[in-house]
Amino acid sequence: MSVLVVGTVAIDSIETPHGSAERVLGGSAVYFAWAASFFTRVSLVGVIGEDFPTEYRKLLEDRGIDLGGLTTRPGGKTFYWKGRYHEDMNHRDTLEVQLNVIADYDPVLPSHYRKIPYLFLGNSSPVLHLRVLEQMERPQLVLADTMNFWIESQRPDLLRLLPRLDGLVLNDEEARLLSQDDNLIRAGKKVRAMGPKFVIVKKGEHGSFLFSQDGVFVLPGYPTEDVIDPTGAGDSYAGGILGYLASDASPPPGRLRRAIAYGSILGSLTVEGFGLDRLRRTSRTEIDQRLEAYRRMIDF
Amino acid sequence: MSVLVVGTVAIDSIETPHGSAERVLGGSAVYFAWAASFFTRVSLVGVIGEDFPTEYRKLLEDRGIDLGGLTTRPGGKTFYWKGRYHEDMNHRDTLEVQLNVIADYDPVLPSHYRKIPYLFLGNSSPVLHLRVLEQMERPQLVLADTMNFWIESQRPDLLRLLPRLDGLVLNDEEARLLSQDDNLIRAGKKVRAMGPKFVIVKKGEHGSFLFSQDGVFVLPGYPTEDVIDPTGAGDSYAGGILGYLASDASPPPGRLRRAIAYGSILGSLTVEGFGLDRLRRTSRTEIDQRLEAYRRMIDF
Repeated sequence: MSVLVVGTVAIDSIETPHGSAERVLGGSAVYFAWAASFFTRVSLVGVIGEDFPTEYRKLLEDRGIDLGGLTTRPGGKTFYWKGRYHEDMNHRDTLEVQLNVIADYDPVLPSHYRKIPYLFLGNSSPVLHLRVLEQMERPQLVLADTMNFWIESQRPDLLRLLPRLDGLVLNDEEARLLSQDDNLIRAGKKVRAMGPKFVIVKKGEHGSFLFSQDGVFVLPGYPTEDVIDPTGAGDSYAGGILGYLASDASPPPGRLRRAIAYGSILGSLTVEGFGLDRLRRTSRTEIDQRLEAYRRMIDF
Repeated sequence: MSVLVVGTVAIDSIETPHGSAERVLGGSAVYFAWAASFFTRVSLVGVIGEDFPTEYRKLLEDRGIDLGGLTTRPGGKTFYWKGRYHEDMNHRDTLEVQLNVIADYDPVLPSHYRKIPYLFLGNSSPVLHLRVLEQMERPQLVLADTMNFWIESQRPDLLRLLPRLDGLVLNDEEARLLSQDDNLIRAGKKVRAMGPKFVIVKKGEHGSFLFSQDGVFVLPGYPTEDVIDPTGAGDSYAGGILGYLASDASPPPGRLRRAIAYGSILGSLTVEGFGLDRLRRTSRTEIDQRLEAYRRMIDF
């Protein structure tokens, strides 16, 4: 089965305690698509400006990612983000944001995309998410991301979106904000009661929780000694999850749990290099080896 | 096999967002002993003052904890701690500390304690820990706790102690401080290279890492919806670990991993009530049920 992602395509400048990277390829849709492409075919919907480097487009095409839904805005400039990570890389400062072409982006899906069964709605406004959903025919599984900004500024729209999702992925802070509960287990359950069939709460290096019909699934973070650049880890995580789900037809709950473990591994690989560097150097074989190591590491 | 604990016996006054408890029984040796007593016989070495309530002594005796090494200092007052937890209960302020009888405590072990095979050195100075070790004959397994204060103020003594330990248990912040490495996986490995056969790094609600000959074992925290009072969770965790180890003669590494899972469950129970309240209400049956639920929650 194939996967559709709607999200940002960006140019990122990144500083971390380990070095810096200038104007590298980034964006939620890019990390998601790259991670999902280890498992299945991925089509990308997004917008770029005329300044978008040809080599970045070629990189995605060579990876086999379908860019039929990637629009170039005439005269526009690509979304740009510049950030600096602290010594404790769980924290970062945004130094510069130029929304550029994404400021008023209203995605129109190519007609043959409307039947794609697996959909990821990358972090964006719930209003935009709802407009994308209206264009889809009958997606088999819809996963969405959100963030503090939307929870605070578009809560009513978000509450309309949630019952239309299969899965919502959000981080610990966002889950607390959305549920207004400090305890993360109660928070996850409350968010699920708002509509999604399952809720995944990410805790960065500390792993994640899945709240579903199957109860609570707890996964520690995959331990890594080489955290170079956390940018894109959350989107790679989502890409690993949905890519794997689209590739495995076995019944839940095992399938969803394995998917989250794969997502966690894709996230762990992403942080081991700047931008897409580490993901570009990995393989399905290495990913599967890491999954087996993961199982051994948590077994008691 | 039986277990010996050397640590503090305290009177605690605790405030949390869920309420408060005045002058309840606490201290590292008490939480440790109570948790370990679900698995094996425990002997306690510590010091109290003449003000120590008879009912607290009776509580420990009725639990079957051997108090042959609990000294009452004539004219002395029991160690007193008063603290307040923040809304985010990972943080607390110490409002008052009266060291009283523990200020110049120099434990002398009753002669029949010197052959006890399992020893826990509760958080105290490494100098005191070394003096206790000198009194032991040939303990089979020695586990110790430490904290920032000793790492900073008595580092050379601590470095002398570490090679004499089988296991060291410390939290994430302490592991970073001791190893001078921000990455927790590298930090754990570096601490192990300082001498202990195994190192357990606690991350509170986020679980723990074990670094041993067997590699890295990763355990997420047991998820709990009812965090009432975190006091004593770390010592209960250690008590669960060493108590279980003393009760299971099967070969490593499975035994040590199971022990840490039991420790985590004892810690999770402790936080579900003020002071010892929740531990007093639990049973080995409930603990084992929680262990099975734990296994199911992390399986993928």
